[in-house]
Formats: sequence, structure tokens, C-alpha cells
Amino acid sequence: MNDRNAAEVDLHNLQVSDPLIGKCQQLVREVAIPYQWEVLNDRDPEAVPSHAVENFRLAAGRARGEFHGTVFQDSDVAKWLEAAAWSLCQAPNPDLEKAADELIELIAAAQCGDGYLNTYFILNAPQERWTNLAECHELYCAGHLIEAGVAFFQATGKRRLLEVVCRLADHIGTVFGPERDQLHGYDGHPEIELALVRLYEATKEQRYLTIASYFVEQRGTEPHFYEIEYEKRQQSCVPTSDCPPWMITNKAYSQAHLPLSEQRTATGHAVRFVYLMTALAHLARLRKDEQQRQTCLRLWQNIVQRQIYVTGAIGSQCAGEAFSSDYDLPNDTAYAETCASIGLMMFARRMLEMELDSRYADVMERALYNTVLGSVAFDGCHYFYVNPLEVHPRTLRSNGIYNHVSPVRRRWFGCACCPPNIARLFTSIGHYIYTPRTDALYVNLYVGNRVAISVGGHALRLLTSGSYPWTDEVEIVVESRPPIAHTIALRLPEWCSAPQVSLNGEPINCEPCKGYLHVRRTWRQGDRVKVSLPMQVRRVYGHPQLRNLAGKVAIQRGPLIYCLEEADNGTELHNIWLHADSRFSLIEGTGLFNGKVLLQTDGWRLQHTHSEEAALYQYDKVPGQLEPQRLTFIPWFSWANRGEGEMRVWINER
Amino acid sequence: MNDRNAAEVDLHNLQVSDPLIGKCQQLVREVAIPYQWEVLNDRDPEAVPSHAVENFRLAAGRARGEFHGTVFQDSDVAKWLEAAAWSLCQAPNPDLEKAADELIELIAAAQCGDGYLNTYFILNAPQERWTNLAECHELYCAGHLIEAGVAFFQATGKRRLLEVVCRLADHIGTVFGPERDQLHGYDGHPEIELALVRLYEATKEQRYLTIASYFVEQRGTEPHFYEIEYEKRQQSCVPTSDCPPWMITNKAYSQAHLPLSEQRTATGHAVRFVYLMTALAHLARLRKDEQQRQTCLRLWQNIVQRQIYVTGAIGSQCAGEAFSSDYDLPNDTAYAETCASIGLMMFARRMLEMELDSRYADVMERALYNTVLGSVAFDGCHYFYVNPLEVHPRTLRSNGIYNHVSPVRRRWFGCACCPPNIARLFTSIGHYIYTPRTDALYVNLYVGNRVAISVGGHALRLLTSGSYPWTDEVEIVVESRPPIAHTIALRLPEWCSAPQVSLNGEPINCEPCKGYLHVRRTWRQGDRVKVSLPMQVRRVYGHPQLRNLAGKVAIQRGPLIYCLEEADNGTELHNIWLHADSRFSLIEGTGLFNGKVLLQTDGWRLQHTHSEEAALYQYDKVPGQLEPQRLTFIPWFSWANRGEGEMRVWINER
Repeated sequence: MNDRNAAEVDLHNLQVSDPLIGKCQQLVREVAIPYQWEVLNDRDPEAVPSHAVENFRLAAGRARGEFHGTVFQDSDVAKWLEAAAWSLCQAPNPDLEKAADELIELIAAAQCGDGYLNTYFILNAPQERWTNLAECHELYCAGHLIEAGVAFFQATGKRRLLEVVCRLADHIGTVFGPERDQLHGYDGHPEIELALVRLYEATKEQRYLTIASYFVEQRGTEPHFYEIEYEKRQQSCVPTSDCPPWMITNKAYSQAHLPLSEQRTATGHAVRFVYLMTALAHLARLRKDEQQRQTCLRLWQNIVQRQIYVTGAIGSQCAGEAFSSDYDLPNDTAYAETCASIGLMMFARRMLEMELDSRYADVMERALYNTVLGSVAFDGCHYFYVNPLEVHPRTLRSNGIYNHVSPVRRRWFGCACCPPNIARLFTSIGHYIYTPRTDALYVNLYVGNRVAISVGGHALRLLTSGSYPWTDEVEIVVESRPPIAHTIALRLPEWCSAPQVSLNGEPINCEPCKGYLHVRRTWRQGDRVKVSLPMQVRRVYGHPQLRNLAGKVAIQRGPLIYCLEEADNGTELHNIWLHADSRFSLIEGTGLFNGKVLLQTDGWRLQHTHSEEAALYQYDKVPGQLEPQRLTFIPWFSWANRGEGEMRVWINER
Repeated sequence: MNDRNAAEVDLHNLQVSDPLIGKCQQLVREVAIPYQWEVLNDRDPEAVPSHAVENFRLAAGRARGEFHGTVFQDSDVAKWLEAAAWSLCQAPNPDLEKAADELIELIAAAQCGDGYLNTYFILNAPQERWTNLAECHELYCAGHLIEAGVAFFQATGKRRLLEVVCRLADHIGTVFGPERDQLHGYDGHPEIELALVRLYEATKEQRYLTIASYFVEQRGTEPHFYEIEYEKRQQSCVPTSDCPPWMITNKAYSQAHLPLSEQRTATGHAVRFVYLMTALAHLARLRKDEQQRQTCLRLWQNIVQRQIYVTGAIGSQCAGEAFSSDYDLPNDTAYAETCASIGLMMFARRMLEMELDSRYADVMERALYNTVLGSVAFDGCHYFYVNPLEVHPRTLRSNGIYNHVSPVRRRWFGCACCPPNIARLFTSIGHYIYTPRTDALYVNLYVGNRVAISVGGHALRLLTSGSYPWTDEVEIVVESRPPIAHTIALRLPEWCSAPQVSLNGEPINCEPCKGYLHVRRTWRQGDRVKVSLPMQVRRVYGHPQLRNLAGKVAIQRGPLIYCLEEADNGTELHNIWLHADSRFSLIEGTGLFNGKVLLQTDGWRLQHTHSEEAALYQYDKVPGQLEPQRLTFIPWFSWANRGEGEMRVWINER
């Protein structure tokens, strides 16, 4: 890079070696990616049939049959391919690479002569291409293919898929744009925008940036494209949608109700929103567009000050998988989709690259260590789509307000967006750990890893260790031999009230800048930076407008939110109370929790005689009395690994 | 009556003269019934078009056009006619009676030669009569017509409609039954059962009891009728339902998953459940059927010990307008349908007639003075369909879990079951006030009224006064001249810890029996019974398994549940706290609340600086501090009469 712009770490040069995130990455490589490949090829009879690879085979003319799946089924293949690509950076795997190469040939064979590529329309309705942007996800699927093409090129150097997606992007560039004979539209599900910016970065072809910008700026303008295209197709609906199509009437669902520059709150489908904002923040940085930057700052603020769960989840309602309104964050009916937190990490990463402010990394870390990590089972192949903060299993089955909530992780889903998204997130986690700039290396996450960063043609090699987030100390050791002058900027997490940094045993006392401590030096082999992040157990209280949290407290240590689970504490977690000044002790987990830090404290339980005959309402006196109970808190991300049971993050306090 | 069986008061002989229930009855007569007549005739352009009367006109061949409305649209007409009938007992109204007579002629003209009568099928699908009992409400509509026929006969002595419904019931008796050439089915929405029992009581024709029993006993048996009829019609669905029809697959929705004798919990659609149980309790008493009685006792207990709101509402979820499971009673997403509480009053009345135990009257009273009374606006013509215990208006509009909740009452509904149900309940309230038996007159409700009860051919005339439930004293004065030996059994409400009864100034100290104090005497003109029911303000606590009530308290005085409303106490009601020992003072309402008793106490509010920039989560200390606030509680039934605002029944306590 010739300027100081943020780049990304080359994932070939980064090995995660961390008992938590590293283990998860390893499970993704060794369990999830192979398993997902089986599912995408319909070889697991227990999973909901995917048909996603078969659709490409049909579109390529290599088999006969009918398309099956959602209109966005192609994207499952693309996200899997992206995850496979990143995993090849960490662990060469000839079988996997061969499977990917063959899949890519299939994708290439399915592509139309003009570059168009979408199996749903190729197989079902070739004349109806680009006639229903609001609902049909064509550009969304294209975006994921483009991301896969870029990743596979970066991971393997192979250009085959990159060329396919460039032809696809070029086709898109002829179809969409401001000219009279072009469509003035944009997709109902943002994704193409962020993908085109990535394609620009991989190819340096300015035209991809131009069309990405066009999509972003055209969005929500009048006359409204979704209405124009709806009229054009004589108000018909695709078979998969209701009539009248609510995605057209409810424009806020896809953030198309207003131009982004006029939007004031995060609204609509949460994944769509953060995907769109990821592109906007990336564009704003690359094009130094101050208005776009202000839009990003404003909408980011709305999320983090009004609409985010303490677990880093967003999108609090099932209806529309959407944001609700400011301060409406119910714990039990939460949607809190896994993909939305992954998208929030993407948005946070792009904001961080633009602003170099640890606030963004703080949110990224909160989402990673809570919702994203929690969406995967310890076995690596069961997933949560929805991530509530409170679960009462018996009631889930009887009350429709919980229809979307599962008390345990599942292997696969009819709409399978989350599992491959988790796979690509963990395999590309290196992109989040560091923000390398020409003037400084920003250390955002203290995931244990070994990395080589290019600084003026030399490789600065660093080894980070320390069992974060279980222990207070992180150590970064310089492993490269030639002395390299550079700045290492160390993030001081918001949850840590007294961070300390030392260099070769000497405390560093300079003032942090936007949450990062900048250490400039000529780094020599053996230089040793110690980052001490004392992890007190902290009580968390909600903003007084969060009405579901009145009188309640959550427990956090380091970046981890803790919770009570029935397996440790019995049922009726709503009858457990914490004293405002109770002290916590750390205990070492055993068995399934081996290597994890659990917390214990003395609390209270409202004891009562569970009488079959007891009146439902009683006068004058609370039925039961508080009795002491030893309470065990586990990291929230690890809940539901011991079967079904009650779980609760926000605990009554008195 | 020749036996001691419970009968009902002749509503001609009872005038409600009570500032609360009487006012409501008067509003129903003077405002609601005329208004509903306009709506049923599509003369209010602001209401959802009903078309209900027009459907009869079409079926009678008096007009041309198409059927409009739900499959159960006929029932709106029938329920209105029943309400009109009861209102004629209280207040002769020649115009209303003329309109009702004309309507009855229309109904009679619509009846088929064989007695069949249902405008949906007559107009839309005459060949498909009785082919979809699970979904199509034919017997439900018939049941309401039968109730209207009985009521109109009892109110006016006119037999025209009674004859129509007898022919309809006789037709039903030929179609349904145990014979091989009969249908072995029953309706998806119970109602016909209770109606046929009423028809039996009006006509003494045993055959109506027989067919009612058949419907009750056939329900839920195998092979399952809903599957048989579904197969028979080649698995087609009526236009108004989804395919595959969930009313058939989800048999518990209509209590058809098991025979009633095997059911252990109240389940499915709450209105269906209580209508069915009303019939069962009535049949059990009339037939002295011990197994049926045990079923009633068991399912009643499940409701009152596990599934009823403190407001007397049932059916806690929107999905299926249904019961959830034991102890699942959310306050904000509650469904708590008005009709379900009316049905619960019906069930309670029949249980009371069977058991003569005040427990049933206690529940009846709780439902009446809270949910049922609260479903009507002070103006008498705006209604709640759904009756939550906690409302945060801004959030209702943004989170789909509240789609069914309205923050204010509405004039009418597309599915308009509630308004005419409210009308027939208030016009027939006399049936709930007294249970007259040959051996005693049971006084269940202390609604102010003047009544004449037939005792051995003589009329025992009583005047009850006392502004219940605002003041502690109720007075019952004998107004009839000839001395009459009889027992008056006075209910001692469960909410009253120290009731006292005196006769002509002398305290009566006998032991109550099943919650009633029996006063036997030869009653003479001027005898004066004083029932003193001290109405302390009582704190109500939920059963410890009611997880939405942990740490919370509700306030009750007499039978009335109180609540906080934004209009008196400001917003953010979740930040208000009561001390466990705070004292309440009674204040006289003014303006809209004229004549009502409000409560005041000193509580606390978590005060905070509402900063736009404040972090959503804060460490270590509760953001804000408790500051004293004077709190005003209003009777919950009177909420939302001052426009939109927050409301809350269950208040934090410390």
C-alpha cells in the first residue's frame, strides 16, 4: 500500500493459536466445512434437503430436474466456498481444494453467455431475470459469489472463479446504472454493494466501485424502483412470496423507505441493514465521502446507544427478523440472529478501518465473544439461528411468541444462512484481529495468534499468547530478526478500568488515542509487550429506558457476558436474586467446561412449597421466603451445551 | 320449579340500578345496541363493513348479491338479537322490537325447507353443508341463533324465532347422531352444545339434551371425525382457510384432541374451551353425571390454579387465541380476549349452579369487574378485543409480538365477536347476580338492583343498594308485603378478610357454607340485611412459578384490580417502585373518574438524566437514583379512557 489506508492481513500469514477462537476455527475447518459440504450435496438424510449444489448442476446442464430451495439458495454455496477458501490459507487440504475447484467449474458452466448467473432464474424463469429486485435476491446471490471469487483468488491465487464473478459483475454493470436503458434499481437484500467494493480492492477496477456507489445512492429514492418494477411485471408475485408482496409495501424492511442519507435509525431486517452499512462505511473510507461517513456515524450510534443487546446481538423481533424501536430489547422473545451479529462485526470492522477508534472494536469483540461464539455448539456442527438472553424451555413449546426460539442448537436450517456465515467468519477472523496500516499496526482483538505483517517490504513477525479472555495477561513477542521501525497500536478494551502495558518489563505510560495505546519503536527480535487487562467481575446495568431490565443486573468478565443455567442452578431462575454487593469467585471449569472460567457467588432463591393446590394469587405477603443459594454463572456463549434447560442473562437484584 | 335445581331469574323482574354495572347496561341499551344495529346493516361508513344482515336478506331471496364476511358472520346477528331481547326485558322499546321482529322474519325466510339455516352455505355452497365441521362454524352459528330464539321468546313471549330454531335444532338432530346414516361429528367451535341445553330448558324437549350430550361425548373420539370428513371432501379446504388446514391438524385448538373425560388441562382456543365447558357443566347438573362433573371440576381447577390472569382473563397467547401452558401469563403480549372472559363467566355460572360454592362466583366477579368491564369504553361504544396487563404504546407499533394489542378501544372489528357478546352479557347480567333455587336464593354479585323472586307462588321483592364496589356496605331491603319464609344465601367474597352481616341491626354470626352465609327467615317488608365488606387495599402476589411476576405486586381493592397509567404517573412505569409497606389512601375521582375510587400512595421513581448520548449499558452502578413520587392508581377497567399512554398492573416492589 502506498497510502496509510487500512488494508487487511494476508490470511496466509496468520495462524490463530488460541484455545477459544482457535478451537472454534479448527472445528469449522475440520467439522463444519466438511459437514456443510455434505449437506449442500444432500448427503445428510437428517438435515433439511439443501439441493444447492444440485441447482448449479442443473443450471450447468449436467443433470436433469427441477430447482429446489429458496430464491437465495445459491448463496449457501457461495458462502461455503468463501469459508473453504479462507480455511485453505490456514491449512492446505488438497481434497477440499479439489472439491472447491470442481464446484467452481460447475459454477462457471452454469454461467450464461452474457455473464448472468443465478440458478433460480436460469432454471425457473429465464425471461424474468432482474424483474423483481425487491424480493428475488439475484444481486444478493451475485454478491456472495463475488465474495467467494475474491476469497478463493486471495487464498489460492487461482483466477477461475474471480474471472467468473468479474464477468457477472460486468454484466450487472451493464444492466444497472443511471442511463435511460439501464435499470435504476437495487437489491431487496443488500450484499452486492459490499461485495463489489471487495472486488474493487482485489482488482483495482474502478468500475466496480462506481456500480457499488450507484446501488447505495439509488436506494430509497423516488420514484420508487420497487413500485416501478412491480407495475412493469403487471403486479405479479413470484411463487415464493405472498400477494400483495409485503417486501414492496414495507420498504423499511429492506432499508429502501428513504435514501440512506435521510435515515435516522437502524430499521428493518437487521442482516440487510448491517450488510448495507458495511458497504457504506467501506465506500465512505475509500472515496473520502464525508456525507456517507456522517450517515455511518449516525446509524452506528443509533444501534449501539439504543438497539443492541448486551451480548452484541441486534434485531430484537422475529417479525421481519428486524430491529424494533429504540430501547425495545426483550430478552425472551429476542430474535438476535447470528448472521446479524456477524454482519455487525463486518460493519464494525469497516468503521474501525475508517475511524481507528476502539469503540468499534469494542462492539466487534462483544458480538464475537458472545453472540457469534455462542451460536456454535462445542461440537462445532450445531448452530443457533436465534440467540435469546432468556429461555424457559417448557413455555417455548406452548406460546406462539416463542415460535422462532429453539432451546438447543440445530444441525441445519431450511433457511441456512447462519451455518456457512459462521464458517466464513471464523476462518477469516484474522481480518478482524488486526487493522494493518502503513503508519501502524492496530491490534483489535487479543486472540492468540502468530502473524507476519508486511512493513516497508519487511515482515514484522509477532506471537500473541495469553489465553484471552480467561486470564488478565496478553503477551506479544517479536519473532522477526531484522529490526523494524513501526507503531503497534494496542486496543484498551472499554470493559477494563485499569489496563497496563509494559515493554520489556518497563511500564508504558503514554496517553491512549481513541482507545489505542500507540507504541512506536524499532522492534527487535525478543521484544516483549505485556498487556495487562485486569478482568474484574463487573455488574452491568441497562439504560433506564430498557424496560425489560428494570431491577436486573447482568454479569460480565472481560468481554464475556455470563448467565445462569438450570444445569447448575436448578429451575425457576426468575426466583433467583443477587445482592447488589455480592462478591464473585472465579472457578476453573471441568468436563465440558475444561479451560473455561466460571463464576460463583452467594445469592438467594425464593423458596416455596410447590403445592398443586396453591392459589395462583395470594394476598398481603410474598408466597415463599428468600433462602441462600450458591450460584454458578457460566459464560453465556456456552449455554445449551448440556441439553435443554432454563437460561437467564439478566438476574433480579436487590 | 318443582325440584331444588337452580333456575334463572326472570329478567323482566330485575332492574339493575347501579352506578357501575347499571350504567354499563344502560350504555349497552342506549348506545351499543342501536350502534351495532347500524353496523350490522352497514350504515356506519367508519366501521369495517359487516354485511351480516344483508347476508340474511340474500339468503331469503330479498336481494341480489354475494355473501360477504367470515363463515361465522351469522353469529353477529344472532348475538345482537339476543342482546336486544334481554334489553327489552329492562326497557320496552317498540322501535327496537319492530326491528327485531323484521329481522326474525328475514331469518325465517332464509331458512331452508328442511330446517337448515346458514347464510354462508345457502349462498356459497349449498351442496357442501355439513362437510367441514372442523372449520366452518355451521353448528356454532346455529347455536347462537338458538340462544337468540330462546332469549327472544323469554323476553317477549313471541314464538316465531323459537319455532325457527326448533326446526333448525330438529334438522341438526336428524343429521347428527350415533346412527349409521348420521354424521358422527361436532363443531370446531363449541356453542351448539350450550345452546341446545338452553333450548331444552325453554322447551323441556328431551331430544335437545340428547343431541347436546352426543356432541359433547363424541368430541375427540377415534376414528377422528375431522380426518374422516377431510378425506370425504377429497382434502379440499374452504376458501377462507389455509391448506393444509391447521384446524384439522391442530386438534387441541378446538379441544378435539382427546375426549373431554381424558383432558387434563385447559388448552387451545380459550373461547371454544369455556363455551364447551359451560355446556358440560350445565349437562352434568341436569343429568347428574358424576364423570362429567369431575371433568368440569378438574379443568376448572387447571384454569384457576394455573392459567388465569389476576384480571379474570384467560388465553394468554395470540397464536390460536389460546391458552399457553401452566403458569405462562405474560403481561404485555397477553391475548386475554374479552369473549373468553365472558365465556368464563358463563362457565363459572354453570359451575356455581351445580356446586353452590362461592369460589365460582369469585372468579365470575373477578372477570366481570376487571376484563369484561374493562373491555368497554366509558362511552359504551368502543371495545377491547385483547386485554393486556401492561402496555407501552410506542413499542406496540414497532415489535411484531404486539401486533394483536391495541392501546385504545376500537369501535368495531373485522371479526366482531366481542361487541355483541359484551352487549348480551350486560343485558343478561341478572342471570349472574342471583342463583334462585327452591330452597334458597343465592346472592352472587352485589350489583345494585331491584328484583322479584318467585318463592312458592309469591314474589319476594328485594332492593339491593350500596354503590358496590366503591363502598364497604351493601344493603338489601325486603320490599314485598306478604311474609315469605325463605333462605337468602349471601356470598362472602374471597377478597374480603372480615365480612360482617347484620339483620335489622343484629349481627349474624352463623358459619358460612361454601362461602355463602345462609340466612333463613320469614321475610317481612322492611327487613334490612346489611352486608359489610371492608375493602382494604390489598397487595396481590403471584404464585412463584409465574415468572413474569417475580418481584412485582398488584393492587386490589374489593374485586377491582388497580393499575398505574401514564396520564397520572408519567412515562416509564417500569421505573416506578413500591415499598412493601407503603400505605394507600382513597381519593374520590373527578371528571371522567367521577364516582370512582382512586388510590394514592408514596412510591419511588428511578430518576435519570435522559441523555441522548448515555451508554446503553453501564458498569458497576445503577444509572439513576430513586426519588419519591406520589403515585395514583386507577381501577384497571378504566384504563385507556384518556387516549394512548403507558399502563401497568404489576408494579416493581422492594
